[in-house]
Amino acid sequence: MEITLNKPLDMHLHLRDNEMLKTVAPLSAKTFSSAIIMPNLVPPVTTIEDVISYKERIIEACGDESFDPLMTLFFKDDYSYDFLNSAKEHIFAIKLYPAGITTNSEGGVSTIDSETLKKTLEAMSELGIPLCVHGESDGFVMDREKEFVPIYEELATKFPNLKIIMEHITTKDSVEALERHSNLYATITLHHLLITLDDVAGGMLHPHLFCKPIAKRPEDRAALLKVALDAHPKVMFGSDSAPHPKHAKESCGCAAGVFTAPIALQVLVELFEKHDKLENLQKFISDNAQKIYNFKPCEKVVTLEKKSFIVPTSYNDVIPMYAGKEISWSIKSIS
Amino acid sequence: MEITLNKPLDMHLHLRDNEMLKTVAPLSAKTFSSAIIMPNLVPPVTTIEDVISYKERIIEACGDESFDPLMTLFFKDDYSYDFLNSAKEHIFAIKLYPAGITTNSEGGVSTIDSETLKKTLEAMSELGIPLCVHGESDGFVMDREKEFVPIYEELATKFPNLKIIMEHITTKDSVEALERHSNLYATITLHHLLITLDDVAGGMLHPHLFCKPIAKRPEDRAALLKVALDAHPKVMFGSDSAPHPKHAKESCGCAAGVFTAPIALQVLVELFEKHDKLENLQKFISDNAQKIYNFKPCEKVVTLEKKSFIVPTSYNDVIPMYAGKEISWSIKSIS
Repeated sequence: MEITLNKPLDMHLHLRDNEMLKTVAPLSAKTFSSAIIMPNLVPPVTTIEDVISYKERIIEACGDESFDPLMTLFFKDDYSYDFLNSAKEHIFAIKLYPAGITTNSEGGVSTIDSETLKKTLEAMSELGIPLCVHGESDGFVMDREKEFVPIYEELATKFPNLKIIMEHITTKDSVEALERHSNLYATITLHHLLITLDDVAGGMLHPHLFCKPIAKRPEDRAALLKVALDAHPKVMFGSDSAPHPKHAKESCGCAAGVFTAPIALQVLVELFEKHDKLENLQKFISDNAQKIYNFKPCEKVVTLEKKSFIVPTSYNDVIPMYAGKEISWSIKSIS
Repeated sequence: MEITLNKPLDMHLHLRDNEMLKTVAPLSAKTFSSAIIMPNLVPPVTTIEDVISYKERIIEACGDESFDPLMTLFFKDDYSYDFLNSAKEHIFAIKLYPAGITTNSEGGVSTIDSETLKKTLEAMSELGIPLCVHGESDGFVMDREKEFVPIYEELATKFPNLKIIMEHITTKDSVEALERHSNLYATITLHHLLITLDDVAGGMLHPHLFCKPIAKRPEDRAALLKVALDAHPKVMFGSDSAPHPKHAKESCGCAAGVFTAPIALQVLVELFEKHDKLENLQKFISDNAQKIYNFKPCEKVVTLEKKSFIVPTSYNDVIPMYAGKEISWSIKSIS
């Protein structure tokens, strides 16, 4: 049994920099046609020069793989129209982080409302640059995304021509918000389709499943699964694959992030097959994103076959999700 | 500034066995007059001989400290009246664990209802042996205690003469249940008065604050704080201090338990002072438990003074809560 995926896209990816970039970039480049690259380096990507040089480093790290990194700027509330007009040809979107909400987000925005963000968002609207958002408040960990939904709604209402992507949504509240605003879209990760807080902290504590936003309740996962499996036209795959070295995950004060890039396609096929929805995976993994962002990715065809794949226990010093476990699908060929 | 606590009691304590017992028992024995000792050894404490020999090992480990270990049996649904009648003089209570719900609970009870537990609970009722319960379902981690409340209520109703102690309660649901049944009581830990899930997984992941039941929501902590600070007559202090070696906490698959025994009194004084409720601490730490269990603990008077105390970074290979942090109260003298 085989399935062919055409131009798989990862619409939310962390590639980091330096040695880590060299470890993880080829793994995404191997099986994905293209990916949106998050700008939360240290310091974050905030200039055209940063974007260009980071893109060059990514392409170099990918070696011979054909892979198109879709670059982003780290949101600042004082980007001018002229700056963004010049940046436009180099970037695919701008990523907004509330200050301090996740890894390397200290330079993010402290006050998130339409008035504070007006200057940058008006220019983005006019120039047609999409806004990607890490949507969490600084409240109680299980409520942070739900508390951010009214902010999404305010921004969507005040900037009706701005495409707003609710990144890595984890709750039924976010799924419901999708239906209320024509300019709200969402990415969904692999791990949030698979786990709940039970998997992180219900038995033993599992640092390799600890991420932000944290995995939520069973009814939240069910809501995410429904729109992903149905390939709801406003949702698309974004792995939020976020590598950390082993010592930063398995220590007192574990860093947030799940590393899924090299197993994402195989596990997605397994998941969609299990729910008898394989026919919708092409839309979730590529077609929806092409329509939402209105772009044509570079060619890549990935064929998977129903054949056991044992996930490596590590990629250099990065531990992937499902390390050492067996998945029932594997990559057969890539062209 | 000083405060004197008379006969401090820890109504829920894990002392383990062997080397760990030798590390932790003297720390509790130093500042507590007495403590209820949990029976979840490997294998669990289920015979009179087990109880007697474990008690001897505890007393030996405590050295010169005067300390009265209040022994428990691990609940079995087939304990006979005659067995319990013989055991009665050696035990203070019986501890019920749902099978597999926490550390070393694999031999616990799979089905928890009044019919299955009838034989043992009827004998306990007649003999006046209190029942201590780890009250969690096998549901979603944030709902486990709430889902267990109807079981508490069924047992309390069917066995009106049985004293039932809801151990280490973590939710407002359990606090509310206390009011509905005259034979329901509760212990509250130090850490559940201090932390919520935010402290475990809201920033980085903190394995040394990972415990079962897991810390809950802010409104749950507020409900616990209220009855503890008011020294509600049906609640008493039980640390659930649960040591694990460092390697079992700081690893992939961290064990559940917070080690608080050596800092409990100092932090409780700090907490009650902060809320201007110091006058209620004597009841919470001893008097309520004496009334609930109707017993007289051995003499011990602990005087604390308002003087900085830096928590050791470890006790042998056990990391305490607040390791390396400063507490504003310290032990001045013990007599």
